[in-house]
Amino acid sequence: MGEERKGGGEEEAATAAAARAAEQARELQDEAAALLTRTRAEEEALRRRAVALQGELRRLRKAAAAAVNAPDSDKVEEDLDRATCLITDGDVASLLPSKTHGAFLKMFLGPVNLRATRKEVQLKVKEEYNSYRDRTALLFLGFPVILLFLRQWLWNGCFPALPVQLYQSWLLFLYTTLALRENILRVNGSDIRPWWILHHYCAMLMALISLTWEIKGQSQPDCARKQRGVELFLCWAIMQGFVMMLQNRYQRQRLYTRIALGKAKRMDVVWGETAGVEGQLLLLCPLLFLLQVFEGYVGFLLLRTAHTGVIPEWQVVVCGILLIAMAIGNFANTVDTLMVKSRFKAKMKKSRGKRDLDTCPSPTGSSPTDSVTKA
Amino acid sequence: MGEERKGGGEEEAATAAAARAAEQARELQDEAAALLTRTRAEEEALRRRAVALQGELRRLRKAAAAAVNAPDSDKVEEDLDRATCLITDGDVASLLPSKTHGAFLKMFLGPVNLRATRKEVQLKVKEEYNSYRDRTALLFLGFPVILLFLRQWLWNGCFPALPVQLYQSWLLFLYTTLALRENILRVNGSDIRPWWILHHYCAMLMALISLTWEIKGQSQPDCARKQRGVELFLCWAIMQGFVMMLQNRYQRQRLYTRIALGKAKRMDVVWGETAGVEGQLLLLCPLLFLLQVFEGYVGFLLLRTAHTGVIPEWQVVVCGILLIAMAIGNFANTVDTLMVKSRFKAKMKKSRGKRDLDTCPSPTGSSPTDSVTKA
Repeated sequence: MGEERKGGGEEEAATAAAARAAEQARELQDEAAALLTRTRAEEEALRRRAVALQGELRRLRKAAAAAVNAPDSDKVEEDLDRATCLITDGDVASLLPSKTHGAFLKMFLGPVNLRATRKEVQLKVKEEYNSYRDRTALLFLGFPVILLFLRQWLWNGCFPALPVQLYQSWLLFLYTTLALRENILRVNGSDIRPWWILHHYCAMLMALISLTWEIKGQSQPDCARKQRGVELFLCWAIMQGFVMMLQNRYQRQRLYTRIALGKAKRMDVVWGETAGVEGQLLLLCPLLFLLQVFEGYVGFLLLRTAHTGVIPEWQVVVCGILLIAMAIGNFANTVDTLMVKSRFKAKMKKSRGKRDLDTCPSPTGSSPTDSVTKA
Repeated sequence: MGEERKGGGEEEAATAAAARAAEQARELQDEAAALLTRTRAEEEALRRRAVALQGELRRLRKAAAAAVNAPDSDKVEEDLDRATCLITDGDVASLLPSKTHGAFLKMFLGPVNLRATRKEVQLKVKEEYNSYRDRTALLFLGFPVILLFLRQWLWNGCFPALPVQLYQSWLLFLYTTLALRENILRVNGSDIRPWWILHHYCAMLMALISLTWEIKGQSQPDCARKQRGVELFLCWAIMQGFVMMLQNRYQRQRLYTRIALGKAKRMDVVWGETAGVEGQLLLLCPLLFLLQVFEGYVGFLLLRTAHTGVIPEWQVVVCGILLIAMAIGNFANTVDTLMVKSRFKAKMKKSRGKRDLDTCPSPTGSSPTDSVTKA
């Protein structure tokens, strides 16, 4: 009887504990729901004020541009710049309507939200992207060097198919991840030039096509001649890897300097075959143009081998056309960036170097797609 | 002089307006920062309470399992179930530490946050995934049917390389997106079985390898015999598409029923070559096993063609092995699911059908990886 009572008491305690737990869960759920509702309402209020202020800033900027010779114009522009920066790069930025995700991200990931609300997370994404680029550049350099080395010393002048296909698979993976990551950075407020993303789409397509491209292995006669396209492509990749490493080092340095000076939105990505600061620019610019000329030349050679019937496959023709298109696009974008830079310099001189146009979105309100390489 | 004064007045107004805008921007920034800090603190407090309650629930569940014959045990378990559901499927869920992202997502996207905090967004992701599967199943059925049809009526019994390679590229894209989306669903609380994701990794690899696989086009002698592997693969794909459509229709129906009954975490994905409800199970199960046998058979045939030297490439061997491995894995998972289901039924009978184990994470606290097909 005592045993039974004790059992009964324990059961009652268990029943009460379970009821209490259910009650606590209900309370937690109510509080969480209330918190979410309240936060959303407050965010909405801040968002509305920020959007209104953005409009006001745009209006003031227009007026200031009309009265550029007024004595206070420097102070006005400074105020406007500071206000714009606070809105576009501060904590308010995460509340403002974001750039749309774009078809590429939707296609791969569905309608998932990729925007980080916390600045730390956004910066972590950016940091990781930078170190990803570093690792990538090493592989970009190492992979083709090893292939070319082995061809000479182990494979008697002709690539076997598998290592080349592994390299092509890696390229496909690499360009897919770069395109995905850059799209994500864009969603998170980076001003990367659309051309560099488009460039990676082209590169993805080329890697995919090159995978279906039959590689005449060592068993085939005249394989060295038929592999001329692959060889040229690998040489181009080595040069590309070398330039990428130089760029990464330089761009990151520059980004840190700009962040330190409070001059950059920290989500700016400084990718692209273009660059800024004077000294290194003298080294980088010729290399960039050389790379682009070589890229176009490889494309031309591919088209010629297809024309003369050495490798009469459609893949060769399409890869050739893609390479030439990418070379032209890269060239046009580099030139455009350099021109924007020189125009910017002239303006800086005129306004006695007090402001940095690079700081914030352009006064017209559209996103500044040319901020990639303004120094 | 009057002109100048008016100009001066306008300038002063502009200067004041700019200063006011800068001041407003500073205020907005301060308020946004304060809101973020406050929200984070409140969320942290709720999170700590939720984690504590989860521990308490786990403890109570153990005690309840020990005293399963107590008179109040039904009520206790009901309370515990309700509490667990509120925590794991309510607004609190978004505050709890999420499953780690996993190497696959990190590799493709970097350390970006993919967890939706709002339930509506999570459900939208799930909905979109379901409709993506629907569209996919149609293509999965249509693509190979058209290829086989054209082969008979237009291509005289032999596939040209390009359409087959387009199909293989599409497969690579499809399996990559499915793997990405399923990983994202997992991050958002879905209990999809790990095998189905692993299965998609294998399928990705196979699609990639099949792209490098030289297709003996119409110009080659004996092409019909050499394309036997492709043909078999397409037949398998047709069957796969058919089963997928049946599954999708059925799984979605079942999911909606379960949501209506409040029995499912709504992020559960019911993918997989397995299914539940009695009537349709009689149709689906034999089809699933047939599909798996056929998958293994295609793998075996590929290995045989490689062995007899018809297509002596390594790609054929690896694809054959992958198909057989996938067939075995699918079979094991289907059988395992059916066994879990029958065990569950026995338990249901014992506890007079009052509870549904499918409702919440298992009492042991580990994630219930077998909830995909419990009906």
